[in-house]
Amino acid sequence: MGSAPTMVEQHTSREDILKRFTTIEQLEADTEKLHEMACAVCAETWADRGKKQTPHCKFGEDGVCCRVCSMGPCRITPKASRGICGADEHTIAGRHYLRMATAGAASHSDHAREIAHVLRESSPEGNFKIRDEAKLIRLAKEWNVETEGRDIYDVAHEVADLGLMEFGKPFGTQRFLKRATKERQELWEKEDLAPRAIDREVSTSLHMTHMGNTAEAEALVRQSLKVGLADGYGGSMISTLFSDILFGTPTARSTEGNLGVLEHDMVNLIVHGHDPVFSEMVVLASEEKDLQDLAKKKGAKGINVVGLCCTANEVAMRHGVRMAGNFLQQENVILTGAVEMICVDVQCIFPALGPLTDCYHTKFVTSSPVAKIPRSIYMPFGPDTARENAREIVRMAVDNFENRDLGKVFIPEHKQPASVGYPTEQIIYELDGVTNSHVEERGSYRPAIDSIKSGVLRGAVAIVGCNNPRVRPDFSHIEIMKELIANDILIVATGCAAQAAAKSGLLGKDAKFICGAGLRRVCELVGIPPVLHMGACVDISRMMLLVNEIAGDWGVDVTQLPIVGCAPEWMSEKAVAIANYVVATGIDTYLGIEPQVKGSAQMMELITEGTRKITGAGYIINTDPRELVKSIIDGIERKRAALGI
Amino acid sequence: MGSAPTMVEQHTSREDILKRFTTIEQLEADTEKLHEMACAVCAETWADRGKKQTPHCKFGEDGVCCRVCSMGPCRITPKASRGICGADEHTIAGRHYLRMATAGAASHSDHAREIAHVLRESSPEGNFKIRDEAKLIRLAKEWNVETEGRDIYDVAHEVADLGLMEFGKPFGTQRFLKRATKERQELWEKEDLAPRAIDREVSTSLHMTHMGNTAEAEALVRQSLKVGLADGYGGSMISTLFSDILFGTPTARSTEGNLGVLEHDMVNLIVHGHDPVFSEMVVLASEEKDLQDLAKKKGAKGINVVGLCCTANEVAMRHGVRMAGNFLQQENVILTGAVEMICVDVQCIFPALGPLTDCYHTKFVTSSPVAKIPRSIYMPFGPDTARENAREIVRMAVDNFENRDLGKVFIPEHKQPASVGYPTEQIIYELDGVTNSHVEERGSYRPAIDSIKSGVLRGAVAIVGCNNPRVRPDFSHIEIMKELIANDILIVATGCAAQAAAKSGLLGKDAKFICGAGLRRVCELVGIPPVLHMGACVDISRMMLLVNEIAGDWGVDVTQLPIVGCAPEWMSEKAVAIANYVVATGIDTYLGIEPQVKGSAQMMELITEGTRKITGAGYIINTDPRELVKSIIDGIERKRAALGI
Repeated sequence: MGSAPTMVEQHTSREDILKRFTTIEQLEADTEKLHEMACAVCAETWADRGKKQTPHCKFGEDGVCCRVCSMGPCRITPKASRGICGADEHTIAGRHYLRMATAGAASHSDHAREIAHVLRESSPEGNFKIRDEAKLIRLAKEWNVETEGRDIYDVAHEVADLGLMEFGKPFGTQRFLKRATKERQELWEKEDLAPRAIDREVSTSLHMTHMGNTAEAEALVRQSLKVGLADGYGGSMISTLFSDILFGTPTARSTEGNLGVLEHDMVNLIVHGHDPVFSEMVVLASEEKDLQDLAKKKGAKGINVVGLCCTANEVAMRHGVRMAGNFLQQENVILTGAVEMICVDVQCIFPALGPLTDCYHTKFVTSSPVAKIPRSIYMPFGPDTARENAREIVRMAVDNFENRDLGKVFIPEHKQPASVGYPTEQIIYELDGVTNSHVEERGSYRPAIDSIKSGVLRGAVAIVGCNNPRVRPDFSHIEIMKELIANDILIVATGCAAQAAAKSGLLGKDAKFICGAGLRRVCELVGIPPVLHMGACVDISRMMLLVNEIAGDWGVDVTQLPIVGCAPEWMSEKAVAIANYVVATGIDTYLGIEPQVKGSAQMMELITEGTRKITGAGYIINTDPRELVKSIIDGIERKRAALGI
Repeated sequence: MGSAPTMVEQHTSREDILKRFTTIEQLEADTEKLHEMACAVCAETWADRGKKQTPHCKFGEDGVCCRVCSMGPCRITPKASRGICGADEHTIAGRHYLRMATAGAASHSDHAREIAHVLRESSPEGNFKIRDEAKLIRLAKEWNVETEGRDIYDVAHEVADLGLMEFGKPFGTQRFLKRATKERQELWEKEDLAPRAIDREVSTSLHMTHMGNTAEAEALVRQSLKVGLADGYGGSMISTLFSDILFGTPTARSTEGNLGVLEHDMVNLIVHGHDPVFSEMVVLASEEKDLQDLAKKKGAKGINVVGLCCTANEVAMRHGVRMAGNFLQQENVILTGAVEMICVDVQCIFPALGPLTDCYHTKFVTSSPVAKIPRSIYMPFGPDTARENAREIVRMAVDNFENRDLGKVFIPEHKQPASVGYPTEQIIYELDGVTNSHVEERGSYRPAIDSIKSGVLRGAVAIVGCNNPRVRPDFSHIEIMKELIANDILIVATGCAAQAAAKSGLLGKDAKFICGAGLRRVCELVGIPPVLHMGACVDISRMMLLVNEIAGDWGVDVTQLPIVGCAPEWMSEKAVAIANYVVATGIDTYLGIEPQVKGSAQMMELITEGTRKITGAGYIINTDPRELVKSIIDGIERKRAALGI
């Protein structure tokens, strides 16, 4: 912590340091090389398939194709202004949009539910233990669970039971809504956006979008906000908090990112997916001595577990496990020819991994009944048998080391140092480090707020979301981040956005050298990188806590803060759910990929301006990252001007 | 009851009677005339829109278009065998199929949940009372709810609370699975098809079909069966039972069907949709004296409430309310120019009703937040205010009588007598009427089973589902029914299929004249029509009880019974959910519309033969109704042969 100059600063020029960052061109050159190697073994990649899928169906892109009944499919054209039932472009695009948000919310929540069940099964002797007792106790008190004189596991089980009821309780709204500011809570009540049981909002959304139900675009957008909130303050928040209780609240730690984390002389085992219940156990199993010894017996120096996608974020911030990359990197890791196994749980797993791993020695292991994929080895993973399952998986990877075909191996060199693990608790901890405990309030965001007020920091942007071949992958993430930090705007990042930052080096503390003077001073003073890694996509719930707490400490509404969200390359339905709860929280959200509602003027108006009238925030959409980042900066400066700072 | 010859039989020849049935050509001529009148006022109908939507998108029809993420849309073509993520035609078609089943299950279940909430609010002084105490007590005992010495409303509220938990309970499977045969229950456990909480299965299904999760077609089909069972033995069964408790278990009663039930000199008020909570109150309000008097003051002879779609089934079998028609008749009623109001709740409501009613004096009233539709008058309907809401709706219709434009009025003459209301209890009651109470078991299906065993009846077919312009609407329903009853096969019908029967006259007792000798004898002896009206689409759950009980009484597995299901013109996602629980129950299901998975050989195999290996039943698909009915008869005869009868 603090501002002591590093070795780097003392002896190296700024220009030299800047050269150490990995550029988008270098990342692309590595991918290009790997894709050439794929060609040599007749393996197909997303780039090949993307070419064949272009141009995309315009009806689908515009959201004016309807497939919710078997009278159709129907499409809106200049000649046909309504589907057979009479649904017009607004109804059709609106229903599809709500279904995307709903599927996203359901996915996060189903993931959360699994973790809640694991918490309920936690025991001192079992595979899953309580690692953050203090957080559990705080949550128990928040939920009026008796804690005095009770066994911590009894408390955990009661908290888990209450958490499980959030998915299906017949009455009441989500408990975590109370973590928002008073102003937000009142608004959500007034506008009927406060979500009831998570799964109920999911079912109601499907009901609304069923043939012959809601046709009014505004009602569909309002329900998208509501089911989004069921994710953000329901499923995702439960997932994050219960994961912290079970696996420990992340803390700042150093690691590395990009394909260079794969090792020539070690067993490379990739954990990919989202659910820490799975990846935690694989990481722990890989550290067991007998398996390490086995790896050595097989001629490897050890077992190199590395993460991909959100799983990478989960294990990096709790164990410092290195990160191989994000969504569109999942084929690249296989193409290195140096991976003994890719084992996955749920979400964002390319079905392409089946045929692709067939071209290599790589074992492809699936573990969840929710994500069974052809041409994988299915090894179901249960809480009771988790350790044994994980050991078996690791053993299989180790056994496979001898099958590596050196002729097929190419590991790109690039990797970057990264500081990861900045949940709200860690941010507060870092801020407390720069307060004078005699005269200043501790445990608050006051130092950050003061920096923003004074203009040293202009504001903050949450950069989140996926990769998407519709744009130049990673380019938007990296360019937008660089431009923002150069303009003294702090970044918090999760998911594939955070991984893009890792690959380029923006999660490293040296990234301060490409910041504006204000942000650089903050980074030096507090000892943080300018892009704060907050975790996986479900951890965008941490960001919601952050903004609500900052608004509370500042004494303004969330909508007034010079803080916005940005998903430059979003791809999944989960991203639609997220965007909805972010907007419902009052945070403007900048999108680099168009939601598929372009064919409806009403829907376009509703998601950009209509929600603004309800929640105070909306989408700003621009597929050109340079224009998008300019509009972000303008938006932040407008918020500052409105606050008179 | 009984076999006393009717006046008709005594004095009229068979040929004369047959002429009284309304033919498909007559139904079509009426529609044709109404569509011409629509043209005159520049109103558009489904037939106009259908023409403009033809040809349909082949990718959608084949199920090989994927829109679950924003990298796409992707389509499988000879040139592109996989989407960008690597999903092939099997994955894409399978996911879409599961999503259809899921949306259907969610819709039925959300409807059921509303009824469960109403049961929980029931009170002796309130708008909603307990009308079938005996059924409530039986259910309370089944669910181990204390009944002795308790107020019936206390019992009702506890039963409602347990029912509400079926949607969201964190543990256990659906309670009503126990109503199936032991054999089915064991099979569902063994094959992991027993559904947990209804909404949980919905969320899990969305999770499985989210980008990057389940890609294996068989896993998607298995989950379709499971989420289907969550509907059939969850949402739909709860809906049916709780409706019976609140509004009374239906009993056989006489009514009429088709557009001729509209009256020139009365206020015509259409109730349309699905939820009896709404339509019951509107029917009751229309009977209140002050509103009847108001109608007379306005120059009408009274208020003529008639039903459409499943709402027609609900109010016909509890109040004898006449039935104007099924799904594709919803525009026709408006086109008569004689309808003061169409008021709707949820599901299968054409958004086209908005612009269409604008061409007439007809008021279009929506009542549910789940189905807000542009260009309607939205009058939210709540349990507390239900009576007042309903009275206001009726008053508005009455007030509108004076606005009827006689120049626009054309009411087709055709209508047919119909006997409706044959839930399992009524069937047992009718069967008891023909048993000798001294020597035979009462309260069983024994007489029906004996008729089947002896060959007097060859078997039974459940004909269900919607209308669909993809085929000649109603033609399949009516022709298949006629052919089956001519072959001594009894029919049970629900939903739009039952309405098609009503329009043609097949729900009338005179339909026995077009039956084979065996079925005719049964109809005369028991005093029933050959097409038994069992209710709305949610009442297919009654059919499930029927087959399970028959299998139990017979002592064979459900799959062995010469009883099958048929949805000749299905259209909605609810139908996909239904088809899945029917197949999961072990009942072969004959479809006249192809599920949109044709582009996947794996999916086609799975839904026709693959499920047969799991549940003992599958789909038989044929878009030619004449061939379809032939295959049904063959299927039934094969089942008979296997039983040695």
